Amino acid sequence: MEIQSFVLKKALEAKEGARAIANISSGQKNDALIKMAEALVKKSGELQAANRKDIASAKNKGLSKAMIDRLTLTEKGIAEMAQGLVEIAGLPDPVGEITKMRIRPNGMMVGKMRVPIGVIGIIYESRPNVTADATGLCLKAGNAVVLRGGSEAIHSNKAIVKILRDTAKAHGIPQGAITFIDTPDREAVMEMLKLEGTIDLIIPRGGEGLIRAVTENSRIPVLKHYKGVCHVFVDRDANIKMAEDICFNAKLQRPGTCNAMETMLVDEKIAKKFLPGMINRFRNEGVKLKGCQRTRRLDKKLSEARDEDFYTEYIDKILNIKIVKDIDDAMDHIAKYGSAHSDAIVTDDYSKSMRFLREVDSSAVFVNASTRLNDGFQFGLGAEMGISTDKIHARGPMGLEELTCTKFIVLGNGQIRT
Amino acid sequence: MEIQSFVLKKALEAKEGARAIANISSGQKNDALIKMAEALVKKSGELQAANRKDIASAKNKGLSKAMIDRLTLTEKGIAEMAQGLVEIAGLPDPVGEITKMRIRPNGMMVGKMRVPIGVIGIIYESRPNVTADATGLCLKAGNAVVLRGGSEAIHSNKAIVKILRDTAKAHGIPQGAITFIDTPDREAVMEMLKLEGTIDLIIPRGGEGLIRAVTENSRIPVLKHYKGVCHVFVDRDANIKMAEDICFNAKLQRPGTCNAMETMLVDEKIAKKFLPGMINRFRNEGVKLKGCQRTRRLDKKLSEARDEDFYTEYIDKILNIKIVKDIDDAMDHIAKYGSAHSDAIVTDDYSKSMRFLREVDSSAVFVNASTRLNDGFQFGLGAEMGISTDKIHARGPMGLEELTCTKFIVLGNGQIRT
Repeated sequence: MEIQSFVLKKALEAKEGARAIANISSGQKNDALIKMAEALVKKSGELQAANRKDIASAKNKGLSKAMIDRLTLTEKGIAEMAQGLVEIAGLPDPVGEITKMRIRPNGMMVGKMRVPIGVIGIIYESRPNVTADATGLCLKAGNAVVLRGGSEAIHSNKAIVKILRDTAKAHGIPQGAITFIDTPDREAVMEMLKLEGTIDLIIPRGGEGLIRAVTENSRIPVLKHYKGVCHVFVDRDANIKMAEDICFNAKLQRPGTCNAMETMLVDEKIAKKFLPGMINRFRNEGVKLKGCQRTRRLDKKLSEARDEDFYTEYIDKILNIKIVKDIDDAMDHIAKYGSAHSDAIVTDDYSKSMRFLREVDSSAVFVNASTRLNDGFQFGLGAEMGISTDKIHARGPMGLEELTCTKFIVLGNGQIRT
Repeated sequence: MEIQSFVLKKALEAKEGARAIANISSGQKNDALIKMAEALVKKSGELQAANRKDIASAKNKGLSKAMIDRLTLTEKGIAEMAQGLVEIAGLPDPVGEITKMRIRPNGMMVGKMRVPIGVIGIIYESRPNVTADATGLCLKAGNAVVLRGGSEAIHSNKAIVKILRDTAKAHGIPQGAITFIDTPDREAVMEMLKLEGTIDLIIPRGGEGLIRAVTENSRIPVLKHYKGVCHVFVDRDANIKMAEDICFNAKLQRPGTCNAMETMLVDEKIAKKFLPGMINRFRNEGVKLKGCQRTRRLDKKLSEARDEDFYTEYIDKILNIKIVKDIDDAMDHIAKYGSAHSDAIVTDDYSKSMRFLREVDSSAVFVNASTRLNDGFQFGLGAEMGISTDKIHARGPMGLEELTCTKFIVLGNGQIRT
């Protein structure tokens, strides 16, 4: 009961903050964001002291080196976190935009106005920089944020939130707009997920386990990013050199990311010409290659790609290669095994490029470009709150606009319904 | 187990249908819709025969007259259902629209393409016309639909679906695109709600109980319409005659609807001039009036409006009246007691009209027009799938566009990430 009323109290503070921040001017929000960035840099000593507590306890608990890396706040990391806030301040404010304003037959004007969503709950794991990034994005889009970070980063997150809140307050941003659930109690998350009507949207950021647990337990709408099983299809009409460069980049520019290629699909008409050189290039970089039967006939050293491999997000230097009959076969494979994240075709054929663009149902579909480009900065959104693999509200990188919704507005002069 | 695999099988058929229908041309979809409308009218005898079975069993079970009315398919009702499909055929197809196409610094073009959502599950109660309306809207927007109607309308719904499916099939629409859960087993709904990843969106249509049950149990995103506690605020600068007409219409044009006014807020500076005539007009129509303390001082015959009354959706000839200090007091009341559905201000003051429009956080906000106008047809959407009171994806009347989403598309010429 205690944790229940604790979380509810926090959420209600956020709800009150949401009403206030929805109507604060862009100028004031930008000013606060820039001041928050300055404060983070100025107090980086404090932040690193708090962070050291988290690192010490992580080491005590025997957490992996990778986890400790994610947890660590370096001087450079703090500067980047601050720079992120400055960049958000520089983006156009989506709130208040009016579109589709039209005069109806009865003379009233009807249109849509872009408005904040309200209270957004962010449930995340060990990276403390999410605290500042998520706060900056939510605030700029006129929302209140309820932050719930991983217990292993609690000291770092508390320190960041304190700086952000204090600075925000000094610049007229209501305290509730930045709300932090400052307890390591795991029940707090479950309580958050029940607060339909108080929290308007939940965005979980972390591993698949976290995201599944949140989705299964939430009564509040959830925007989420599941896995990225991404494909590049090399069509028979591809430019071989371009296809090689795109596939190489899609797999290797950063293999540990959700938009990295996991399966390369190759048109049978180009396989013999394309694959030997490509396989060589991957081998030279130490990529573990798995092939379908036909691919293995071309290259005996390949290990076997089994059915379950094609469903797998490796996020590692491992790649499936499959030879397909044609574009239809490729799109069937993507529809069956893909995760609707990022998929690309390499081709010089106009009709096939248009078909792929239209028919492949992924959050981002590419013609002659690397899947690694599915990213808020690359797409010009300026910053992103993860990449949504959901089918409603937002698909792909979520920028400021995706953290808003629209309401209808009506300008009348006495219209009634008859 | 049996019901589980039955529902899963249906949903997988729908998923297959979704992939096919997403790429069917507008012309073909429109043609099918018109033929479906013709078939409904031609077979209205069959439909009414099936409907009589439902009515007989409803009478046996002692259902209320209102429920039996909702269940009944008259000749006229069938003609309207058919006309609805013809109108949907006439609306522009939202699918495929490309917006925000811009060239990025690296030369690739990035934009958004409007795409169907996929599989939409509709869970509804006794009105069989929802079967045709929902099917028409989902189909036109390129989605497959999984219909789950109330058990009391099962014969009517089966008959409608058979006609729609047969006609659709004859015109090249995949069978799975119109899927009906043809069992009265209540567990079927619970099984539907677990099928995250197969069904992409659930829209419940019915009473608050149904909607709450669906929201609490669904792992799939839900778009819903809770209650409508709607307000008209009569500002001190209102045109008295216009205010009277709007309030009268908002309460009485159809009191049983979600966008009817439940509370009238009156600026203290205009109360004495406005209220006596307005109260008289309402009394003459038999409206039961409840007033705040100050209103009751003006009119001793009013009963008391208690705090809980202000939260109540009467959907009846009952109205709360409250005198407020000013626009801020009015907006505070709406934020506290309202349901973010439809709220209006009547004023001739420019600044206050703009403040109300911007600051009131409802699915539709009106200046000098009746809340009863919050409706897909009135707003020019052509048809609607209910009115969303959610804060994400869609707020207000949901037309065809709200049954779609967008994906990112990228046209490159060899771009990779550096």
